[in-house]
Amino acid sequence: MQLGMVGLGRMGNYMVQRLMRDGHECVVYDAKPESVADLVGKGAVGTASLEEFVLKLSRPRAVWLMLPAAITDKVIAQIVPLLNDDDIIIDGGNSYYHDDIRRGAELISKGIHYIDVGTSGGVFGLERGYCLMIGGEKGIVQSLSPIFASLAPGQGEIAPSAGRDAPAQSTAEQGYLHCGPHGAGHFVKMVHNGIEYGLMAAYAEGLNILKHANIGAATHEVDAETAPLAHPEHYRYDFNLSDIAEVWRRGSVITSWLLDLTADALHADPVLTKYAGRVSDSGEGRWTIMAAIDESVPTPVLSAALHGRFSSRDNDEFANKVLSAMRAGFGGHVEKPKG
Amino acid sequence: MQLGMVGLGRMGNYMVQRLMRDGHECVVYDAKPESVADLVGKGAVGTASLEEFVLKLSRPRAVWLMLPAAITDKVIAQIVPLLNDDDIIIDGGNSYYHDDIRRGAELISKGIHYIDVGTSGGVFGLERGYCLMIGGEKGIVQSLSPIFASLAPGQGEIAPSAGRDAPAQSTAEQGYLHCGPHGAGHFVKMVHNGIEYGLMAAYAEGLNILKHANIGAATHEVDAETAPLAHPEHYRYDFNLSDIAEVWRRGSVITSWLLDLTADALHADPVLTKYAGRVSDSGEGRWTIMAAIDESVPTPVLSAALHGRFSSRDNDEFANKVLSAMRAGFGGHVEKPKG
Amino acid sequence: MQLGMVGLGRMGNYMVQRLMRDGHECVVYDAKPESVADLVGKGAVGTASLEEFVLKLSRPRAVWLMLPAAITDKVIAQIVPLLNDDDIIIDGGNSYYHDDIRRGAELISKGIHYIDVGTSGGVFGLERGYCLMIGGEKGIVQSLSPIFASLAPGQGEIAPSAGRDAPAQSTAEQGYLHCGPHGAGHFVKMVHNGIEYGLMAAYAEGLNILKHANIGAATHEVDAETAPLAHPEHYRYDFNLSDIAEVWRRGSVITSWLLDLTADALHADPVLTKYAGRVSDSGEGRWTIMAAIDESVPTPVLSAALHGRFSSRDNDEFANKVLSAMRAGFGGHVEKPKG
Amino acid sequence: MQLGMVGLGRMGNYMVQRLMRDGHECVVYDAKPESVADLVGKGAVGTASLEEFVLKLSRPRAVWLMLPAAITDKVIAQIVPLLNDDDIIIDGGNSYYHDDIRRGAELISKGIHYIDVGTSGGVFGLERGYCLMIGGEKGIVQSLSPIFASLAPGQGEIAPSAGRDAPAQSTAEQGYLHCGPHGAGHFVKMVHNGIEYGLMAAYAEGLNILKHANIGAATHEVDAETAPLAHPEHYRYDFNLSDIAEVWRRGSVITSWLLDLTADALHADPVLTKYAGRVSDSGEGRWTIMAAIDESVPTPVLSAALHGRFSSRDNDEFANKVLSAMRAGFGGHVEKPKG
Repeated sequence: MQLGMVGLGRMGNYMVQRLMRDGHECVVYDAKPESVADLVGKGAVGTASLEEFVLKLSRPRAVWLMLPAAITDKVIAQIVPLLNDDDIIIDGGNSYYHDDIRRGAELISKGIHYIDVGTSGGVFGLERGYCLMIGGEKGIVQSLSPIFASLAPGQGEIAPSAGRDAPAQSTAEQGYLHCGPHGAGHFVKMVHNGIEYGLMAAYAEGLNILKHANIGAATHEVDAETAPLAHPEHYRYDFNLSDIAEVWRRGSVITSWLLDLTADALHADPVLTKYAGRVSDSGEGRWTIMAAIDESVPTPVLSAALHGRFSSRDNDEFANKVLSAMRAGFGGHVEKPKG
Repeated sequence: MQLGMVGLGRMGNYMVQRLMRDGHECVVYDAKPESVADLVGKGAVGTASLEEFVLKLSRPRAVWLMLPAAITDKVIAQIVPLLNDDDIIIDGGNSYYHDDIRRGAELISKGIHYIDVGTSGGVFGLERGYCLMIGGEKGIVQSLSPIFASLAPGQGEIAPSAGRDAPAQSTAEQGYLHCGPHGAGHFVKMVHNGIEYGLMAAYAEGLNILKHANIGAATHEVDAETAPLAHPEHYRYDFNLSDIAEVWRRGSVITSWLLDLTADALHADPVLTKYAGRVSDSGEGRWTIMAAIDESVPTPVLSAALHGRFSSRDNDEFANKVLSAMRAGFGGHVEKPKG
Repeated sequence: MQLGMVGLGRMGNYMVQRLMRDGHECVVYDAKPESVADLVGKGAVGTASLEEFVLKLSRPRAVWLMLPAAITDKVIAQIVPLLNDDDIIIDGGNSYYHDDIRRGAELISKGIHYIDVGTSGGVFGLERGYCLMIGGEKGIVQSLSPIFASLAPGQGEIAPSAGRDAPAQSTAEQGYLHCGPHGAGHFVKMVHNGIEYGLMAAYAEGLNILKHANIGAATHEVDAETAPLAHPEHYRYDFNLSDIAEVWRRGSVITSWLLDLTADALHADPVLTKYAGRVSDSGEGRWTIMAAIDESVPTPVLSAALHGRFSSRDNDEFANKVLSAMRAGFGGHVEKPKG
Repeated sequence: MQLGMVGLGRMGNYMVQRLMRDGHECVVYDAKPESVADLVGKGAVGTASLEEFVLKLSRPRAVWLMLPAAITDKVIAQIVPLLNDDDIIIDGGNSYYHDDIRRGAELISKGIHYIDVGTSGGVFGLERGYCLMIGGEKGIVQSLSPIFASLAPGQGEIAPSAGRDAPAQSTAEQGYLHCGPHGAGHFVKMVHNGIEYGLMAAYAEGLNILKHANIGAATHEVDAETAPLAHPEHYRYDFNLSDIAEVWRRGSVITSWLLDLTADALHADPVLTKYAGRVSDSGEGRWTIMAAIDESVPTPVLSAALHGRFSSRDNDEFANKVLSAMRAGFGGHVEKPKG
């Protein structure tokens, strides 16, 4: 079927390519003409303005926005006056689901349908397919099935869970799912990312323990400011982290795609020299914790993962100074200089 | 090659079966004659005593112990007097690596070699193979390669990480790895389990957020003891957790074997009625945190996962009573009865 | 000076009493006539309606609201039409500081001044005084100084910090402080409560460790679902928690008012039988974490304290069921029944 | 009564001074002659060797060791051959209670009594008195009561908890307490320090939130690596942390000695320039968590405080690099340089 795509960064570009491989017609627009040109070269219908973009789409139009969350509302405001009744806007970016709920209600009052799609898969999505979590009106979602089916990975080599296969229980086995009304797609994607933070931190902390397993071999300072290592003979291992990540990929309980990526990175550079360890967080992890708090659902693990990212950027500095000041106050403790 | 197996519970039994499939000769012993008989029926050489067991093995003997950690030392004490120089004891159970270090040193003084093997794969290992993390003397580990290679999953459909394949970098691509000296195998397995706790908690907390995403639909009490839900309209989703786990299995960043198992469980019973939520922990998770503390390595996420298990068994009860007593003290707050 | 008080629950009642002791004239109103009557008996000017209440106040009026946060906006909407230019509304309840910022801007456009006051001190405030954290226009705050000074504890026996005393650095030494513009008072009070959660949890967890210090004396199950206790001889203490809390009150680093309250409670009932351990949280603790997340400030300790309260109310139940389902899936583990 | 003190660092020196003020006779020894000379100048009986030290004490001797934990066993080994039946060794340092249990059993077999004393009070103890937590044989503890009573703060201005005063319930009201058999004193002190870590972190995190409350006033980067700040207007406060700490000292729920110290430090230097924020931990905090884990007691808050200290010393660096490597792997995310 026909789809219009606005926003041709890496994600938008790859999605258009994946759709065209499956025979869909893609009309594309981006503020950068070279981004449009690139996809025209691959078979897309290019446009030079939002007006032209809308004109080249057949009604009811399906307009997929793949934009930074910060400008999505602005583009929606520009495009809505150009649309007609029953046209569809699909937000495939990383919007906060609160905004989906608001937009869904606003747009339906103007006769426009709104669909929110949480998209996971990252830079591998072009080949691997995108896991799609979808929110909005059921009938509209169904009308877009051909698009979702092409973007999603399909069943592939991943067998359905026991009992799901005959007959198929839902489109989940194909890698896309209508999760609920407006915002449901981004809500599920938000939680997906919250989980992702926790998974990543679990591997990272475990590998860090392995990394420091030779601490007993080092000379250990004996002073009142250094906790004693009672049994240095227990910490004399020089582990090959790359090999360990690789062996865990086969048959262990902790196999995962994130582990695959970690093994790749550790083989390329076992000490990860090129990273400083300042870890960004980009919205969903925070919103996940805020949702958990609103729901009174305990998330100590996911929270610890988020706060660890804040600390990785030294945002704990003043708090740590307060601790040192207290220790100086009650015990006369003087900070040890950086080793 | 020939291997002797002592301890024929599910793990020992499956390992013997997997070895025999690959043509290895297995001499087996268990205190329960019926466990021996079962494997004799499948082709193993059965024995009725440790003495007979040792006699039926060719020197240098390779004796694999697959026992509860609590009795491993006792069985080692029984079998060592029956062994000869250069015989090998392999502990494939869940020993604490401290014990491996001690045993390795003790046994080498008696001319016996000791190998520790951390084994992951659970009840699926018979078909899927076991991920093996191995500690001990390098030459001895190499001499046992045929055994390890048969127990391990092999490369299978899991491609080696980029750059590892030609030539092979280590046996890690086959699913087994010599990690270092005595204790190294169980150390790596310990950390593996520590990571496992963190991964599991990340999924569980995320799914719990989805589970409670309809809290805004419920009537919400308005009293001073209940924090207000400012925006109930943001929490009116009835998510199908089974479908969501299934869709995440395809193309998302959080695909993993643990997610596969979770999707299976949620499809079989979306509300998990048969579980009470009292979660055991069986040693490695605790030891992981203790090692991290010895090493001064921060593990806030793995720790939170462990403490969550303790709380799942209501071990936080007295602490919570103290909180309620304080609140009554300074604010006159009265506990709300269970909802 | 004269102050009008709306909302005569325990907090409002005590504040009026404390103000009258210092010679202030208090005009009072509450929807419940008996609450008004009680204070009239103690010397206050009672009123039977908001209209009468406003009429009995001299201009510029100072109206202190001591209401549940949920109804504060409603009462403000009722009273504002009755007020005149330069009248002052003071919200001494537990409002979210976001609401203060909004209200402050709305009211100033109507010529009304708005002051937010975070109040700590609980049921002891009548005798001990209230710690007041104040937000709003500086001049207005200063005009209310006599009220704040009477409500606050004053310097009392607590010496100013080194260097603060001559001359006084601020009103902080008297127990009240203008913290900043609209919302600043409730922001500081919010963080105060966030800290309070962390402090409380620290004591509660520590006492819980002491409570279980005799675990080595008990018979300990030996099964694969119970982590072994390697050294039961280290856990054979029967501690008297009441005595320990009492001794810590004198000369230790952890003396505090919360410890005083805990010692009281433990002496009255060392096992705290009357509490179930279901711990409420009432807004500020949540908002604190949300503010920290907005600021990217790591708060792992305060967060853990909040999530512990959620778990105390069994909101971790479904997450724990997921963990048990996973363990059954990969390891065939069966939950142990409640001990 | 007479007491021998070995180890005349600041703690030992102050304790001797405090004891002599109350009329006790102190025989003192330290490897550094100048430390001995200082106390001789204040009235103590100085000695030049352990032999002379023992000879100058009357039987049954009471020998208090105030030594770094790392050398306590060595000094005990030197002094025990010089002692006689029924002499008493008191360890007032920061020993691990495991060592107390071992020493208590070893020494009793030699006719020597062993007492462990956990001591809190820090550098203020000389004037403020020391909170003493005592383990060992009851009769021996009682025989040392005059010493303990002089070192402890006494009841002072701190009223006993309700119901404890008439008659006195224990010596806890005087600031010292026999907590149980060998190791009980250091066990209780260990947990005291574990709590201390939690309390300190609670204040530090809360103050850090206040410190960053003006983040909305700054220009905020808009890029995919920076989580958006939805409402900058909520974060435009420039708080005076020194004043806030001071006001909390009066009448608030979070008054404490640690807050007093914090207020002092913040008044002296509101930005704590002289501290780098590398926070040591010196044993007890770690042991507390290990004990909690052995007991299966959840301590998420105390654990988070400990792990925060590890992170303050950048021990999370490799873990954070792993996170950045994963993010680069799945999303092509590039680390932002340090702001």
